[in-house]
Amino acid sequence: MTKMKVTPWEVSGKIDYDKLVKEFGTSLISEKMKGKLQKTHPLLRRGIYFSHRDFDKWLEAREEGYKVSVITGRGPSEKMHLGHLVPFLVAKSLQDIFNCDVFIPISDDEKFYVKEKLDYKDVLKYSKDNILDLIALGFKPEKTFIFEDFIYTDIYKYAAQVAKKITYSTARATFGLKPENNIGWSFYPAMQTAHILFPQFYTGKKHISVVPVGIDQDPFIRLTRDIAKHFDLIKPAALHAKFIPSLYGAEKMSATGEGVIWLSDSPSEVKKKINKYAFSGGQASVEEHRKKGGNPEVDVSFQYLKMFFEPDDEKLEKIEKEYKSGKMLTADLKKILIDKINIFLKEHQKRKKDAEKIINKFILKN
Amino acid sequence: MTKMKVTPWEVSGKIDYDKLVKEFGTSLISEKMKGKLQKTHPLLRRGIYFSHRDFDKWLEAREEGYKVSVITGRGPSEKMHLGHLVPFLVAKSLQDIFNCDVFIPISDDEKFYVKEKLDYKDVLKYSKDNILDLIALGFKPEKTFIFEDFIYTDIYKYAAQVAKKITYSTARATFGLKPENNIGWSFYPAMQTAHILFPQFYTGKKHISVVPVGIDQDPFIRLTRDIAKHFDLIKPAALHAKFIPSLYGAEKMSATGEGVIWLSDSPSEVKKKINKYAFSGGQASVEEHRKKGGNPEVDVSFQYLKMFFEPDDEKLEKIEKEYKSGKMLTADLKKILIDKINIFLKEHQKRKKDAEKIINKFILKN
Repeated sequence: MTKMKVTPWEVSGKIDYDKLVKEFGTSLISEKMKGKLQKTHPLLRRGIYFSHRDFDKWLEAREEGYKVSVITGRGPSEKMHLGHLVPFLVAKSLQDIFNCDVFIPISDDEKFYVKEKLDYKDVLKYSKDNILDLIALGFKPEKTFIFEDFIYTDIYKYAAQVAKKITYSTARATFGLKPENNIGWSFYPAMQTAHILFPQFYTGKKHISVVPVGIDQDPFIRLTRDIAKHFDLIKPAALHAKFIPSLYGAEKMSATGEGVIWLSDSPSEVKKKINKYAFSGGQASVEEHRKKGGNPEVDVSFQYLKMFFEPDDEKLEKIEKEYKSGKMLTADLKKILIDKINIFLKEHQKRKKDAEKIINKFILKN
Repeated sequence: MTKMKVTPWEVSGKIDYDKLVKEFGTSLISEKMKGKLQKTHPLLRRGIYFSHRDFDKWLEAREEGYKVSVITGRGPSEKMHLGHLVPFLVAKSLQDIFNCDVFIPISDDEKFYVKEKLDYKDVLKYSKDNILDLIALGFKPEKTFIFEDFIYTDIYKYAAQVAKKITYSTARATFGLKPENNIGWSFYPAMQTAHILFPQFYTGKKHISVVPVGIDQDPFIRLTRDIAKHFDLIKPAALHAKFIPSLYGAEKMSATGEGVIWLSDSPSEVKKKINKYAFSGGQASVEEHRKKGGNPEVDVSFQYLKMFFEPDDEKLEKIEKEYKSGKMLTADLKKILIDKINIFLKEHQKRKKDAEKIINKFILKN
């Protein structure tokens, strides 16, 4: 196994999350904090989000009645799959429980700059499609602000003010810029920083905002926290997620290939993909499985139930026990997951259609 | 004298304009073209604009009834002085004679990025002030489009598309970027290129647009002409000016110190500055001057009359003759200039006040 490497643009080697927390200087989510998160989405209360910066302060501020918010963005370079939903499910859960604003920047510009073959018209098309997927998750219209860099171009005013505080050499170090990259890419660190500070810029009210991100994205958070002081703003908090496995069981859910469940997948596609690709923690034969039992820790189907689709702790525990004991076979486990995903997607696809009618309630315009 | 160096960010040494034309690969304005420019502003017809790219094509296109336009911008880091008017006087003259659109980008973002101490609010204030000065020149409201990057933020959409076509290393070479410069500055080459292509982007109509610039700015024109092909647009033409002397007679009119005539100067300030600072081509004593005569070539007062304030060729020739012969003293020459400037500024200051009422006819908004 190669040495662990975790940067915003490269993740390799066996991931040691405790070591990452130490290296990055973040904090593990404490038992005390977990106590306050009991009703939140499984991704949060079951430890997929495991580390943070100042999220304790966020929770305290909310308890004391202060304004708090969530900010999490989407780079629209393709249609969305399950893995893309991770931070948004957390954002929605925080909105539901803490009744807070959610800000969703759509970084069409970033994807346009970074993906050489992605053209301007296509990125706008993906943005629209992705926004409908996000609205379908059930965010509150009056408390959710979705803005797209190429539509809500007034974001440039904020990005420019941030840009003045970031040198090219800092951006190069934080974002891995190369001289042959285009200058939109060079500028994007300012845009992203402006996105994260946007809840305070836009509302004109200093408050603590939390950003749910993959732990590999923490350098961006550090940069933004550093920039915040120039504007006399409160440093944004962060919630850091572990890497979500693809169906194959890899460390990070891939955007390409068959290893993902697209939000547009049909029931038969889901069934086929899970049965064919979902990495199993079961044994090679039924006989062996009955005897030795499966390993839910590495079983992608079980992990997806844990992270996304079985919110009931007792039911999840029962599945875990039965799978471990060998009573439940991989095929049974997969069937449970397939049904759950298909129920979710059927509802999601319907809600996405309905989202067309209410999209204007969410979108910021110049 | 040091060796000539002419880049967009450094001009030094004795300037050899013929050599520059060769080095840059531009063309001198031909006699044939001069014939077509007989009624234009002195800056153009008297050779201060001396070189060009494709301006012959611009003139031909207009003659054949095709759409043509002028684009020239202003970076608003301070109030405006006489030297700042140079490209705008030419733009207005071309509009008057060829009845063409004029596009005026106000690059508040550039000045904000480049001037370390210039803050966001101040740059907006200067923009407003400068725009009023420009409108006061008498542009036609229905054919003049003034847009400010921090107000007409939709420009970001165009700049982004351009940015994708410019690598950081190209921008670094063309604009002299350094790693310690901020990333707004890194991005600005895209914004400037978008400004120059804007007449075609905005109207949606391919046509030839001319940019009046100082010869030192030609590398930006080359870059833009190179970028134009990616968008299937017509390469912009350029008109190149020699450096305009400050009152001291230096090669380029300085923005600081006493050596400039601000558009807001009072008659007594103008009188004082011209008498005190305007470099004289006259002799050390009246007696010597009467005998040897003055040198109009280096006399700033004469040059200002030639470039700006004495459009009548016969009158200018008479002044030149009398000054050269020693009949006209430096004091007489200065008096002519002072009166001309004060008439111009009195009218200008009045028109600037009136411009407040019509500003909305000129400004592009998102």
